[in-house]
Amino acid sequence: MELWYTEKQTENVGITCKTSKTLHVEKTEFQHIAVIDTMQFGRMLVLDGMVQTTIEDEFVYHEMITHVPLNTHPSPKNVLVIGGGDGGAIREIVKHPSVERAVLVEIDRRVVEVSREYLPEISSGLDNPKVNVIYDDGIKHVKENPNTYDVIIVDSTEPVGPAVELFSGDFYRSVDNALKEDGLFVAQTESPFFNRDLIKHCYREISGVFPLTKLYLASVPTYPSGLWSFTMGSKKYDPESINSSSIPGYPTKYYTGELHKGAFILPRFVQDLLK
Amino acid sequence: MELWYTEKQTENVGITCKTSKTLHVEKTEFQHIAVIDTMQFGRMLVLDGMVQTTIEDEFVYHEMITHVPLNTHPSPKNVLVIGGGDGGAIREIVKHPSVERAVLVEIDRRVVEVSREYLPEISSGLDNPKVNVIYDDGIKHVKENPNTYDVIIVDSTEPVGPAVELFSGDFYRSVDNALKEDGLFVAQTESPFFNRDLIKHCYREISGVFPLTKLYLASVPTYPSGLWSFTMGSKKYDPESINSSSIPGYPTKYYTGELHKGAFILPRFVQDLLK
Repeated sequence: MELWYTEKQTENVGITCKTSKTLHVEKTEFQHIAVIDTMQFGRMLVLDGMVQTTIEDEFVYHEMITHVPLNTHPSPKNVLVIGGGDGGAIREIVKHPSVERAVLVEIDRRVVEVSREYLPEISSGLDNPKVNVIYDDGIKHVKENPNTYDVIIVDSTEPVGPAVELFSGDFYRSVDNALKEDGLFVAQTESPFFNRDLIKHCYREISGVFPLTKLYLASVPTYPSGLWSFTMGSKKYDPESINSSSIPGYPTKYYTGELHKGAFILPRFVQDLLK
Repeated sequence: MELWYTEKQTENVGITCKTSKTLHVEKTEFQHIAVIDTMQFGRMLVLDGMVQTTIEDEFVYHEMITHVPLNTHPSPKNVLVIGGGDGGAIREIVKHPSVERAVLVEIDRRVVEVSREYLPEISSGLDNPKVNVIYDDGIKHVKENPNTYDVIIVDSTEPVGPAVELFSGDFYRSVDNALKEDGLFVAQTESPFFNRDLIKHCYREISGVFPLTKLYLASVPTYPSGLWSFTMGSKKYDPESINSSSIPGYPTKYYTGELHKGAFILPRFVQDLLK
């Protein structure tokens, strides 16, 4: 017997993966959590029926949501991740030599606990002594911590369920407030093929708060359309003006200094979304 | 009742698309041809059960397999497409002001005829007076036409069925022979996530024939993993040394002069494949 897990990524298209084992299924206060073993992508974390991360392709998303903002800032010391309970972003952040403190604010404690149990390759960074894990609402946290962070990373689920408010202008103003005067932030902003209205919305709202707003792209096979966007709002530093040769030399599988700049070179239809 | 078309892209992963209508199904001498209407991607051409092109995302593949080589050559006049019976590559090639003659050599006449009937948005360029459509084996054609073309584009199906020989060193030597002394060629070479051995094989074989071999990438949602590679072999011109500002200003939806260079900036794991 073959078991296939299918995610309907939109009403009209889906990805289907052959599975070998269902390891965990749980309904928490916030969402439905599942961990399955897939033949193509290895172990997979699924929240509310949507693929969050897999052992085989998680490196793309986690490297690109962290190293692009961290290397845009000349010396990021205090870094906040909102969401990201799997720990993958934290694992990348603690590679960065200037980081002194990495705070993870995850609303659902069970995502962290399940990831620690079933996804040690991804969650390993959570045990680093620089890391502080807080179980709380990210929106509340940024409101209560003004002028605190150099870099904020919004590693959220899709804009349904607990994450809806993380795509609003009000939230971006709170993020602005929680950043130091030369701080910057990045949010995952979905697929330019399938979520054009959302990208336009986020870009417009972030542009209304931050003097510099830029979108960049990376290829994540298990995410809808395979092409994923990230939108950065920055108070001072331009991600395209970095000196690639000065980037710290920690190991990566996707990110490079050249790709940092290359990720901002957009296909024409994506440029047109941002006009 | 809902009908979903599912392509198993590997043994362990697939894409599934909601369909509204099956327009055409046929078994030819060479392969199985189907045309279906999908809700997400519009009309879709399927050969031997593999998505070849769709109305919604065909622009990426067709622009990137043509404009990158055409704009690498300073004045491409004679251009050959092997395969590509849907006509999408030809439609892009005839946009280029220096092109005087575009030859399409397709082994299966029915692919061209079905595309003319059901995919006019893609096949329209085939009626351009610069275009000559030949129904023949592309391998035979390059052997019989030495020192003829400025640019050759290998727009093949996957390396199963009629296309297997198009991924061999022998074929690349014949292509070299059919090119003029400053000619160049490009071939589609599958996904860097799912087809790593094939990419390594093609890169090694092409490097054995051409002094300059370079790989570039583009994001095609309906192709396996969503990230697709193209490998260029060039006798003289370097695709990364073009002057972006001198590129002709015809309309595109994906390709730009900056993206021409950006597409060669590779993720580290892809760089590592080519070592």
